[in-house]
Amino acid sequence: MTHEHAFSLHVPDLVFGRGALAEVGEHARALGLTRVLLVTDRTLRPLAPVTRVETALRDAGIEVILHDFVAIEPTESAIDRAGAAGQIHGIDGFISVGGGSSIDTAKGANLLVSRGGRIADFLPPPLGAGRTLGGGPLLPHIACPTTFGTAAETTGIVAFALDHGRGKTTLTGAPLRPSLGLLDPTALLTLPPMVLAANAFDLLSHAIESETARPFESRPAPADPARRPVTQGANPFASLGCREAIRLVAGALGPALDDPTDIESREQLMRAGLLAGTVFGMSGNHLPHALSYPISTLAHRWTAPDYPDDHPFLPHGLSVALAAPAVFRHLERRLPDRFAPVARALATDSVADALIALMRRAGLPNGLTAIGLSDEHHPALVEGALAQRRLIDNAPLTPTAADLAAILADARRYWS
Amino acid sequence: MTHEHAFSLHVPDLVFGRGALAEVGEHARALGLTRVLLVTDRTLRPLAPVTRVETALRDAGIEVILHDFVAIEPTESAIDRAGAAGQIHGIDGFISVGGGSSIDTAKGANLLVSRGGRIADFLPPPLGAGRTLGGGPLLPHIACPTTFGTAAETTGIVAFALDHGRGKTTLTGAPLRPSLGLLDPTALLTLPPMVLAANAFDLLSHAIESETARPFESRPAPADPARRPVTQGANPFASLGCREAIRLVAGALGPALDDPTDIESREQLMRAGLLAGTVFGMSGNHLPHALSYPISTLAHRWTAPDYPDDHPFLPHGLSVALAAPAVFRHLERRLPDRFAPVARALATDSVADALIALMRRAGLPNGLTAIGLSDEHHPALVEGALAQRRLIDNAPLTPTAADLAAILADARRYWS
Repeated sequence: MTHEHAFSLHVPDLVFGRGALAEVGEHARALGLTRVLLVTDRTLRPLAPVTRVETALRDAGIEVILHDFVAIEPTESAIDRAGAAGQIHGIDGFISVGGGSSIDTAKGANLLVSRGGRIADFLPPPLGAGRTLGGGPLLPHIACPTTFGTAAETTGIVAFALDHGRGKTTLTGAPLRPSLGLLDPTALLTLPPMVLAANAFDLLSHAIESETARPFESRPAPADPARRPVTQGANPFASLGCREAIRLVAGALGPALDDPTDIESREQLMRAGLLAGTVFGMSGNHLPHALSYPISTLAHRWTAPDYPDDHPFLPHGLSVALAAPAVFRHLERRLPDRFAPVARALATDSVADALIALMRRAGLPNGLTAIGLSDEHHPALVEGALAQRRLIDNAPLTPTAADLAAILADARRYWS
Repeated sequence: MTHEHAFSLHVPDLVFGRGALAEVGEHARALGLTRVLLVTDRTLRPLAPVTRVETALRDAGIEVILHDFVAIEPTESAIDRAGAAGQIHGIDGFISVGGGSSIDTAKGANLLVSRGGRIADFLPPPLGAGRTLGGGPLLPHIACPTTFGTAAETTGIVAFALDHGRGKTTLTGAPLRPSLGLLDPTALLTLPPMVLAANAFDLLSHAIESETARPFESRPAPADPARRPVTQGANPFASLGCREAIRLVAGALGPALDDPTDIESREQLMRAGLLAGTVFGMSGNHLPHALSYPISTLAHRWTAPDYPDDHPFLPHGLSVALAAPAVFRHLERRLPDRFAPVARALATDSVADALIALMRRAGLPNGLTAIGLSDEHHPALVEGALAQRRLIDNAPLTPTAADLAAILADARRYWS
């Protein structure tokens, strides 16, 4: 095997600062937009970030068609519907306001308006027709995140659920990346506490996983260096961002939860999100994220506070948080040197213990049993995690099924 | 005055790693290139970075027209000549290999091939015809830096000297930014010691100036938020990169000079350059750079070792280094809090003393008198520095003429 010798960096244009959302009209005009589809979700629709963006666009003389049919996790049909809305209204650009769901829905819809067809056409067979994304740019898309954990505004990734319960998939490509991201910390003031906590744990775990991922030089070289994978393993440039993000989230989560009007802590959290999108998103996740997918799938019995209550639903950030302390306890013992910088950033001796303390502080469920997952689920969780090949291969140590079983046993319950 | 509330980030695609230059063929093909102008200078022409790039392009089936008429600091006519070469040969893209001069010449020539005319047409009257850069993209341009101090591969800035001794100017705009930068630390193995040192001091001072620049929130808000200035003052995101770059350069300069084959230290230096291009270039320089321009203009009597010896020439990095310790000594006393993180990154109590120690280690001239600038030159240096409005306005404290005179007096001679 030839080893990888380089890493690549792709960052879209970003504007960061309190009040940045009010600039969306000028930015849209500079991109030549006259008539846009504003993609958001129904919860956010009446709230400040959406009304502020809508007003700024209209003040700049831009026609706005509001589209709030975004599913809480984007679905195939929700993307097709947003694409159809864009086509019908003859828009020349997209504005998305919301979390990863709204931003990813707009990315997918942009592909459909620009190239025609349905989103499934672009999936590889047998799921779809295997159409390529094409080389040219799509319509301009300004992404306005109201969360800070996903970095969706900087990636060319659309994550969505296939219709008819056929599971989740992702579509990836440079043309899908938004043209501009507006990161306004005031947009986080609308996040309910549990959503904020889920975001924080997703980002915190992402930063720790990126810091401790398999180093890029020990991964296989890509077949085509012009098409490196989206996630490329750990590197010293990314590491700088990981350590700062860990420090920022660990310091700001408590104050942000204590005071829902505190903007300083929210600015720190969004700054951590900026680091994920610009500096360390390239490294990629590993075991906590690999375990999170089967955990989400099997957690049918638990409904998260602060999320829509029409169906049981385990937010992504919580599904990551639940296994993370046990994963890190397992790896920390075996690779103390790799975890020392994480421990320093958390000002702790034990990464696992520091995460558990933050979970308690944020009112997260106490381990897997608290969301209804018992020992009988463990074999399916192990199998589901091992199926996440890309994530497993990015781990600093490749786990056996027995390793994962031991990690799940430790993740049953974290405090008494 | 309304204050600024946001900062913007624009980073082109980059690939970083040992051996990245050998990938240029695949990247050129992925950008659709078939016939390119390879812009470099005569000194570099027979050396490994150029031959490696040329071979890789030809191996990928791409026609290469070599153009090595780059001036050591780009001139109006050198850019016009490169543009004419591109037009005559019917190229569809640019590859630049070299320092800021080669990369900036290719940026300017790309404008001429894509839009027609001469470079002066794009300067504002009375220097030129005031043509706009236009909105669409130029031809693809892959920049391959063989130095690490300029970040030219990530900026939309072309710095050049007007013909007939009418001074230096810059042309700035997003379309001028290269499509891709290939940062290969092995390319630094061809840098002679004094060029490496000049680069290091330019970058080190840039990082310290960015860290201590006027904070972005205390600068005036831009008239159009879609067109923020290239340099925007200090911010916490940039600060992270500044501190790491200071640490990297201070640690790697000595080992790189001691062993011309040491690749580890060169990788650290190029990593500092990556931080300048991606994370902190947005902050901008202040007093050491403002003083460097008149210092270069007046330093007629000194010829730098390792640079072409056909005319006396003070490399940019040295002109920055000569005033930097005196500037920082002046500011450090008045703003100890702003300089504390710099002192920590340098592991010193005095930023000025640490820089002076590095200057001695690198064999740099001992202050302004060593390059033939005596007290009679000081009034002209003060006047020249104060004319650099943009840089003076980015300083943490606005200096009076008397402040600058005192700084120059301190910069006469640093050690006995």
